Amino acid sequence: MKVSKIRMGLVGGGEGAFIGVVHRMAAELDGLITLVCGAFSSSSDRSKRSGAEIYGLPADRCYGSFAEMIEQESQLAATERMDFVAVTTPNHVHYEVAKKALDAGFHVMCEKPLSFSVKEAQLLAQQVADSGQLFGLTHNYTGYPMIKEARELIRSGAIGTVRRISIEYIQGWLSTAEESTGENKQAEWRTDPSRSGAGGCIGDIGTHGENLAEYVTGQSVSALCADVSTFVKGRQLDDDVNVLLRFANGAKGVLSASQIAVGVENNLTLRVYGEMGGIEWQQMEPNTLIVRWPDRPYEVRRTGGTGLSSQAEDATRLPAGHPEGYLEAFALLYRNFAQAVQDRKNGSVQPSSAYDFPSVDDGLRGMKFIDAVVNSSSQGAVWVDLD
Amino acid sequence: MKVSKIRMGLVGGGEGAFIGVVHRMAAELDGLITLVCGAFSSSSDRSKRSGAEIYGLPADRCYGSFAEMIEQESQLAATERMDFVAVTTPNHVHYEVAKKALDAGFHVMCEKPLSFSVKEAQLLAQQVADSGQLFGLTHNYTGYPMIKEARELIRSGAIGTVRRISIEYIQGWLSTAEESTGENKQAEWRTDPSRSGAGGCIGDIGTHGENLAEYVTGQSVSALCADVSTFVKGRQLDDDVNVLLRFANGAKGVLSASQIAVGVENNLTLRVYGEMGGIEWQQMEPNTLIVRWPDRPYEVRRTGGTGLSSQAEDATRLPAGHPEGYLEAFALLYRNFAQAVQDRKNGSVQPSSAYDFPSVDDGLRGMKFIDAVVNSSSQGAVWVDLD
Amino acid sequence: MKVSKIRMGLVGGGEGAFIGVVHRMAAELDGLITLVCGAFSSSSDRSKRSGAEIYGLPADRCYGSFAEMIEQESQLAATERMDFVAVTTPNHVHYEVAKKALDAGFHVMCEKPLSFSVKEAQLLAQQVADSGQLFGLTHNYTGYPMIKEARELIRSGAIGTVRRISIEYIQGWLSTAEESTGENKQAEWRTDPSRSGAGGCIGDIGTHGENLAEYVTGQSVSALCADVSTFVKGRQLDDDVNVLLRFANGAKGVLSASQIAVGVENNLTLRVYGEMGGIEWQQMEPNTLIVRWPDRPYEVRRTGGTGLSSQAEDATRLPAGHPEGYLEAFALLYRNFAQAVQDRKNGSVQPSSAYDFPSVDDGLRGMKFIDAVVNSSSQGAVWVDLD
Amino acid sequence: MKVSKIRMGLVGGGEGAFIGVVHRMAAELDGLITLVCGAFSSSSDRSKRSGAEIYGLPADRCYGSFAEMIEQESQLAATERMDFVAVTTPNHVHYEVAKKALDAGFHVMCEKPLSFSVKEAQLLAQQVADSGQLFGLTHNYTGYPMIKEARELIRSGAIGTVRRISIEYIQGWLSTAEESTGENKQAEWRTDPSRSGAGGCIGDIGTHGENLAEYVTGQSVSALCADVSTFVKGRQLDDDVNVLLRFANGAKGVLSASQIAVGVENNLTLRVYGEMGGIEWQQMEPNTLIVRWPDRPYEVRRTGGTGLSSQAEDATRLPAGHPEGYLEAFALLYRNFAQAVQDRKNGSVQPSSAYDFPSVDDGLRGMKFIDAVVNSSSQGAVWVDLD
Repeated sequence: MKVSKIRMGLVGGGEGAFIGVVHRMAAELDGLITLVCGAFSSSSDRSKRSGAEIYGLPADRCYGSFAEMIEQESQLAATERMDFVAVTTPNHVHYEVAKKALDAGFHVMCEKPLSFSVKEAQLLAQQVADSGQLFGLTHNYTGYPMIKEARELIRSGAIGTVRRISIEYIQGWLSTAEESTGENKQAEWRTDPSRSGAGGCIGDIGTHGENLAEYVTGQSVSALCADVSTFVKGRQLDDDVNVLLRFANGAKGVLSASQIAVGVENNLTLRVYGEMGGIEWQQMEPNTLIVRWPDRPYEVRRTGGTGLSSQAEDATRLPAGHPEGYLEAFALLYRNFAQAVQDRKNGSVQPSSAYDFPSVDDGLRGMKFIDAVVNSSSQGAVWVDLD
Repeated sequence: MKVSKIRMGLVGGGEGAFIGVVHRMAAELDGLITLVCGAFSSSSDRSKRSGAEIYGLPADRCYGSFAEMIEQESQLAATERMDFVAVTTPNHVHYEVAKKALDAGFHVMCEKPLSFSVKEAQLLAQQVADSGQLFGLTHNYTGYPMIKEARELIRSGAIGTVRRISIEYIQGWLSTAEESTGENKQAEWRTDPSRSGAGGCIGDIGTHGENLAEYVTGQSVSALCADVSTFVKGRQLDDDVNVLLRFANGAKGVLSASQIAVGVENNLTLRVYGEMGGIEWQQMEPNTLIVRWPDRPYEVRRTGGTGLSSQAEDATRLPAGHPEGYLEAFALLYRNFAQAVQDRKNGSVQPSSAYDFPSVDDGLRGMKFIDAVVNSSSQGAVWVDLD
Repeated sequence: MKVSKIRMGLVGGGEGAFIGVVHRMAAELDGLITLVCGAFSSSSDRSKRSGAEIYGLPADRCYGSFAEMIEQESQLAATERMDFVAVTTPNHVHYEVAKKALDAGFHVMCEKPLSFSVKEAQLLAQQVADSGQLFGLTHNYTGYPMIKEARELIRSGAIGTVRRISIEYIQGWLSTAEESTGENKQAEWRTDPSRSGAGGCIGDIGTHGENLAEYVTGQSVSALCADVSTFVKGRQLDDDVNVLLRFANGAKGVLSASQIAVGVENNLTLRVYGEMGGIEWQQMEPNTLIVRWPDRPYEVRRTGGTGLSSQAEDATRLPAGHPEGYLEAFALLYRNFAQAVQDRKNGSVQPSSAYDFPSVDDGLRGMKFIDAVVNSSSQGAVWVDLD
Repeated sequence: MKVSKIRMGLVGGGEGAFIGVVHRMAAELDGLITLVCGAFSSSSDRSKRSGAEIYGLPADRCYGSFAEMIEQESQLAATERMDFVAVTTPNHVHYEVAKKALDAGFHVMCEKPLSFSVKEAQLLAQQVADSGQLFGLTHNYTGYPMIKEARELIRSGAIGTVRRISIEYIQGWLSTAEESTGENKQAEWRTDPSRSGAGGCIGDIGTHGENLAEYVTGQSVSALCADVSTFVKGRQLDDDVNVLLRFANGAKGVLSASQIAVGVENNLTLRVYGEMGGIEWQQMEPNTLIVRWPDRPYEVRRTGGTGLSSQAEDATRLPAGHPEGYLEAFALLYRNFAQAVQDRKNGSVQPSSAYDFPSVDDGLRGMKFIDAVVNSSSQGAVWVDLD
């Protein structure tokens, strides 16, 4: 028997934001979650306007601050109040919002990178561990069916021990001083160390790459050597990074992240080669997974195709050839998160690790990765360990 | 000021159906529509079960027949009852549902092909014209941003008079007698002339091709010569069709539709060449539009890219490189339809032609196209006119 | 033990020609053939100039006419004189050159289409049959390794009975009146019925498509219905053709040939679907063969890859990933033809059918195909049989 | 007036070799060069057998050693003897052959990498400088038309100052101990430090990447940090390398070379991003150059297309859409080299730098690059300067 929908409160996502609406669409796609309230702006008026115009929310559920939202919602009936908070603000606010939400007993879904600093990340991880509450991190690229397929293939041992991992995440949208045009809020905060934290490009997109590589291969980066650059004059954070990687199992690799690759849209690519096979995947053609073998033609596995792993099938909503995209992958994280919340409601308490969505620990790991990259580079691009 | 959501009632889409959930996801994606009721089965119990399990609907809004749904909903308060009916049943039921819904004053969104027969299509078109109500047809492939871009490019005259139009829509899923396995309801009704009508493959997917070609080019098929085949033994309807096309402006073309192209997923391809340029688009890479010129390198226009037509921009939800897919395109039809319903609610009555979604007239045209193809072939693949 | 090279005489290929040098490069690529003489122009001076500048030939082996070449070469010692004549003139001269060469006891390699008319083709086929001499036709696209692979796959029965065959050969270079610029000899004769024969586009490239489809599938076109167009004003021959095809085994298909697809380079595509699998190949990515199956991911077979048919391997010169192109495929016809000539020299007389290169009978079939297409269209695009 | 062909002598390329025949085909493709002699084996008999069977050469021009070849050919008449020596042996023999050939007054075309050691490379570079003789190095990938186009585009300033350079050259053929099968001579010497030198994968293919990047961008690597791996047990040389790069102008980059990327054929990829545009090229689709811009759709420039640079046009032999491949690119180096030799014959003495083929100085640079990579890695993957 179907129960009522999980209720979501959104922090961030007001006028000029991009990712707020994405969260709304992704969360609601599978019919399990409904947005019930939000703190869309630090001005109560603007929050109510955004709430109405963008999200169709009534004024009394649009708050002038996240603190107010948490406080007010806490006082609503259990059948009315939000079940979890989605944090979509710039990085420097993540911690504060998440902490307060957890304090008040709400579960949390948070944008990446987890926080402003490693310190904050550690505190959050501890709080989640202590409280036992649910915490998801929107490393959304893990939600693609073909990423599930790649992961299961590697996990099955079919390609043998992983040897070589290439990750690339390049874009071109910051190849000029977009942050100085006065018209691009996204560029402004992402290039501002007081809002983004220590990493620019490496924090914004590099961590997606690190997370995806570790998720798919099951291997973790043990050491790295990073050369971090800022090509656009006056910019305060990195906009181009190349990193040599060593993995715990002996695999080697390289991660490139750039936002000055002129004209490139959003090219996240993962390639993994083991002793007996390899996989190649590109985010801009997400429904295709190339699988290579030493002694026969390469295969092209496709979302919705026959003979895929059950994990890939579960992540698929449409028949083969009906392209699924970014929102659908994003929605998968919310679907799995909703399941976890629902299980709690049904009295079944399982840890986040029982579900397939990125966790606060992944977020902490990502923050350490950013830190290691920045440290490596600031010392002259030397090797640093990542525990 | 945001108003409340448009309310949708769904006919069809119960257990084992595919397209019902697609309609739900597509309709709700942009936050303008909410599913409030449905007739998911001819058994009241099964309808309620589907409603609860698949759609999360309360039992009192899940009806045992579309007739009951229309009757009961009509008696609800104006602020409660559904605003429109989405018809997602097999073809032979479209007419009856749509007619009754229109009779009761509801707008209608209907699956393609419009009806079981040309006769039914004519009646529906007449009823829509007479009633002034809104009627949309889910030729969903028209909703892709790059289809909008192609259309505007051609409309602008940039490629000159259109000369050559190639349309292909091929699949492989019916290359064996899938309808006889007892496990594929989709295959069963699509190959059954008592439920599908005169066309099998040509009705199911060929009409998508015809509609898309006419939508993008602004040209209409004036005559055709069709060779229709049934390759799978025992099948009662066509599973492979090749059609020579002549267009009103003198352009020539060819349309191929097949469901026995083994291993092909859902390959809808449109290519148009004019005197001064050409466009090429493939549904399985929908965010890419190739634009060819006589004297310079070809361009690759991409969803979310710079310098696109406003129509393409309006149809886009995400930045470039964040793939949009089938559901997003489908949702665009619902977004435009919701706007039309909303305008009516706001007292602004404009005809369907003021909006960008396929109409009942497109549906009638599609039925005539199916008819012409079947007639051409049954007479030995001779030329027949299409008015 | 290696013997000396086969000696080739070239007719055509003077200044402004394109295909003559292609024949020279292709013929010599494998080190089995050497160009020794030519009739490059009807002016003796120009012939000698072309011979020296383009081909590095001594003046005494550059003739002012093919008749002179045949006569003079016949008088040279057997170890000196050419072994065969390559005919690369416009179509209306093929017959005369080939006939005289055969009369004089030379083998012949001839450009496609075979001749100006079906009548000439019949005479040539008869002469070849009577004389027992070798005759090759440069349907060069059959020389690609992946075409061999596709052919062997189908021949092996792996994809079952062939049902659907799509052939497309489209170009854009004649989308304007290129023949009227006074600067394009290639365009001039190809659009001139007194030099090309009854077919324009259908003869120039359509026959490549027909030949390739029949070669790969082993099926022959039994009937066709063609809609032939001339889009460029003032042009005397067709520049765009769409043809419905029926094959002897019951397969259906469509062939499109166009030279007004603006901006398209040289897109020859073949797709074949059988009961149990399918293949897809594109000339502009010739080293890739897609093989589709009903129940597993599609394979991408590649030139030089492992596990290919011996026929594909034999046609390959380089390791996988070292692209082979048009010249290499063209050269394969010459390599096989050279083998046949060499066998004759070694006293082993086998018919042309013992070797893998297109024959005079393929050429006759191509001429009948052109004729059928033109006849079908001139009667209003009706069905005509092709024996 | 055409003069007689340049005469080539080949060292290496006997039975079991791969690259010898490639040199023969490439050298002869444009009709400017003819192979006249060779030292194909250290056994006189085997050399004569290879000469006859593979190359069709008479026994008296097939020598049992390169020393014999150089000596004997020196004594032939100027109109008979070879003009230059092509060195296609394993690396450890390059120096000796090249030195002796230069000593004897022959020009030299040499396989990459230039030599066994930096020391040898320095000696050769000095000898070439002192003698004024011609010396070419077969970094064959520079011969592709689209590489010329990319180079000219960057040289023109159209993409502004170069910022980011990604080079990748990955293969899979050494992912197992192929050198231990006893059946792969190519694998044996390439993994043997006594024949290959200090670099395995980095020398065999990494230097192609370095050379191509510097050739196309006009920028030189000034420092690097390399992580070199050997994944296959028992192998004595590297089979996987990742290198961070810094260029003299401030650009950053990364070079990956691997021979253990299972199933990957021969994937050499170059991507360059400047302030105002970018280019992307892949060797396995060599006729395509993607050109990206900040504010408009990306362009796809194609070999043979209109509006290309004269350098790209000069490097093209066929109309657009007629794929040119590896051999054609390779042949361009020989064509340019033949021109240089011919100019010498005609009394016009110009330095190698006046021609477009890789030089001995490029070869020296490549050897220093290998050295730097190996040194960087052996010191723990630290930064080393490259002058």
